[in-house]
Amino acid sequence: MTAPTAPTTAIAGLTAVVPAGGAGTRLWPLSRAGSPKFLHDLTGSGRSLLQQTWDRLSPLAGGGVLVVTGRAHADAVRSQLPDLAPGAVIAEPSARDSMPAIGLAAAVLARRDPDAVIGSFAADHVIRDVPAFGRAVAEAAAAARAGWLVTLGITPTHPATGFGYIELGQELAVDGAPSVRRAARFVEKPDAATAAGYVASGFRWNAGMFVVRAETLLELLRVHHPELEAVLREIAAAWDESDGAAALERLWPSAEAIAIDHAVAEPAAAAGRVACVPADIGWDDVGDWASLAGLLPDAGPGAPKVLALDGTARALDSTGLVVAAGGREVVVLGLADVVVVDTPDAVLVVPAGRAQEVKDVVAQLKAAGRTDLL
Amino acid sequence: MTAPTAPTTAIAGLTAVVPAGGAGTRLWPLSRAGSPKFLHDLTGSGRSLLQQTWDRLSPLAGGGVLVVTGRAHADAVRSQLPDLAPGAVIAEPSARDSMPAIGLAAAVLARRDPDAVIGSFAADHVIRDVPAFGRAVAEAAAAARAGWLVTLGITPTHPATGFGYIELGQELAVDGAPSVRRAARFVEKPDAATAAGYVASGFRWNAGMFVVRAETLLELLRVHHPELEAVLREIAAAWDESDGAAALERLWPSAEAIAIDHAVAEPAAAAGRVACVPADIGWDDVGDWASLAGLLPDAGPGAPKVLALDGTARALDSTGLVVAAGGREVVVLGLADVVVVDTPDAVLVVPAGRAQEVKDVVAQLKAAGRTDLL
Repeated sequence: MTAPTAPTTAIAGLTAVVPAGGAGTRLWPLSRAGSPKFLHDLTGSGRSLLQQTWDRLSPLAGGGVLVVTGRAHADAVRSQLPDLAPGAVIAEPSARDSMPAIGLAAAVLARRDPDAVIGSFAADHVIRDVPAFGRAVAEAAAAARAGWLVTLGITPTHPATGFGYIELGQELAVDGAPSVRRAARFVEKPDAATAAGYVASGFRWNAGMFVVRAETLLELLRVHHPELEAVLREIAAAWDESDGAAALERLWPSAEAIAIDHAVAEPAAAAGRVACVPADIGWDDVGDWASLAGLLPDAGPGAPKVLALDGTARALDSTGLVVAAGGREVVVLGLADVVVVDTPDAVLVVPAGRAQEVKDVVAQLKAAGRTDLL
Repeated sequence: MTAPTAPTTAIAGLTAVVPAGGAGTRLWPLSRAGSPKFLHDLTGSGRSLLQQTWDRLSPLAGGGVLVVTGRAHADAVRSQLPDLAPGAVIAEPSARDSMPAIGLAAAVLARRDPDAVIGSFAADHVIRDVPAFGRAVAEAAAAARAGWLVTLGITPTHPATGFGYIELGQELAVDGAPSVRRAARFVEKPDAATAAGYVASGFRWNAGMFVVRAETLLELLRVHHPELEAVLREIAAAWDESDGAAALERLWPSAEAIAIDHAVAEPAAAAGRVACVPADIGWDDVGDWASLAGLLPDAGPGAPKVLALDGTARALDSTGLVVAAGGREVVVLGLADVVVVDTPDAVLVVPAGRAQEVKDVVAQLKAAGRTDLL
C-alpha cells in the first residue's frame, strides 16, 4: 500500500466546519472568556490558532469553510478571517457543546447539497505536519462518502492521560482510503497505567476530528437523539431564508447540550458505523502552558522557550517558557522549568509541571468576582 | 547602668544629614536610576524610605534635617518632604560618594554654629525600633560633643557577609553616653567563616551611621584629605551667600570622590578617635529583595510576603515575596521562596536565594542599551 499524496486540489464536496469555542482557561492569563485561545497567536507565527486552522483547511475544503462560534466572538472571527464567505459564520446564541454546533452545520449543508461531506476540526489545535493532515482528510472524505462516520486517530507520542483514545479494528476496503480501519470503540481519558497499555496496544488519540456525510451524521443523530435532530433540521429549514436568525433564536435553547462524542460517535462505534484514519500529523491541543512549551522552537540549552507577542524577554540561567504579551520586559533569573506569562493586566508564574492547575487560578478569580480578569 | 530613655525633646544642636543617593540596583525593577530606592515605599507603610527616615530624624534633630542628594532627585525629595526647611536640600552636581556629601554639610553647618553636631543617616535604610534608635543617637550626640567621631554599631542578627564590621574596644566614660565604647577598628565585608568569628567576638555591623561635631569631622578630614577639606570649606563660605550655587558648580568637580569610611572613619579609628554606641535597633539596609522579604509582615504559613503598592497579588501554594507595583494582578502558583516583582514596564522572577544577582540583570540591561528600564 503506498501512502496517498496530499491533495493538490480541494476535496470535492468537503465543507470544513470549525467549532470555535472554549475559553482555554488553562492558558490564562492570555486566554480569556472575551478573547479565547483560538483568537491568539500561540506559536509566534504571526497567525492565531483560528487563522492557522483556516490556512490548512481552506485549500482542502472544496465546499468552503464554516465557523461555528459564540455570538460574542463572531465579529472577531470575521475580522481574523477576511476571506471567509459571507454567511459562513454561525453565531450560537449560547454554548450548547459540540453536537448542536456541528449538527446545525450539517443540517444547513445537507439542505444545500444532499451529498455534502463535512469535516469538523477545532479552531484551537496545532497541526505541525499539514501535508500529512491533508492526506488523512482526503482518506477520511473518501471513507465518509462510502457511508462511514470517520474520525482521525492521532498516533500517540506518549501515554497521555489528558486525551480519550480510539481502539482500532479491522482494515476496511475503501477506495481512496487505503489506511482506514474500523474504529472499534472510543475510551475515556485513562489513568497512567491504562494509558501505557493503550499505547502499547496501538490505540490512537481521539482529537475530536470527524469527517462524515452531513446526511449520515443527521441519520445517526436521529437514531440516538431524535429531538435534537428535529430541532436542528427545523432551524436549517429556515436558515437560508429570511427568517433564519429568528428561528435560531427561538429554537436554539431547546437544542440538547451534548458533545458529539457522546451523542453520536460512541454509540455509532458500538453499532459498527465508525471508521478511523490513523494520522501522524504532529497534532497538539495546546492544552496548557507546558504543552505550548513543547511546541515552541528550542531556544538552546539553558534557555527558556520564548513567545514574544507584545513584549520582550530576558532569561539568565533559566528554562521553561516565557510569554511576553504585556508590552513589557520580562526577566527570569535562576529558575528551571518555570512558566511566566505576562499580559497587560495580569502576570502568572507557575512551574511547568503544575501548568494544569492554572484552571484553579481561574476558578479562584471567578469566586472572587474578578470578572475583569476572566 | 540603666538604659537611657528615648529623648522626649530634640537633641540640642544636632542636625541630621541624610545622604540620599544610590540607585539600589539590586531592587530592580522597582528601584531605578530615575526613581531610586529611597523614594519608594518598600514596607507598605504608605511612606517612602526617605519619608520614614525623615519621620524618625525630625523629632530628634534640634538643628533640623538636611538632605544631600543628586540634582536629578532634588525636586522629588522636596516633594516627598514638604516640611523640610527651605534651603535644606543640597543638590550635588554629580555623585562623589559620601565624604564630599557629608563633609559639605558639615562645613556649611560649622560656619553657622561652631558647636554644631551632625548625625549622618542614609535615606534608604529601615529601622524598626525607633525609640531605641533615638536613645542611641542621644548617646552618640553626647559622645560627639565630647570630641569623638561616633558610629552606631548594629547588633548582628546573623553572620552577614554583606556588611563591614566594627570591633569594639574599651568602655569610655562619657556623660550621657553610658554604653559608648572605643571603636577599635573597622573591617571590610568578611567571608562567611570570618563573619561567624566576628559575631562570636561581639563585633558590630557598620551601618555607616556617624554622629560627630561638624568641626571635629572637618579637622579629621584636614588630617587625612586636606585638599578635600579646603574645597568643602570654600564652597561652604559661599553657601549662605548669593554665590553659593555658582561656587558649588565651580568647585564640586574638584572634590575627591571617596567614602567617609575610607576617608576618615578608618584612619581615625586607627588613631583612637572613634567611638561606637552599640545599637540594637532593628536596622536593615534593604539590600535586596530577599532582605525586604525578611522585613515584611508574615502572611501566614504557605503564603508569600506581599507588598501591594499598585496592584494585587494572589498566591496558591507558594512562599517568598510578591511585589505588585504594576497596577495589575500578580498570580504565583506552586513556587517556594520565589520573588516576583511587577512594575509598569518590567517584571522580574527570581528565587529569593539568588536575589543578589539582580544586579547582573541591571548590568545586562545596561549593556543592551535598555536605558529605558534602568
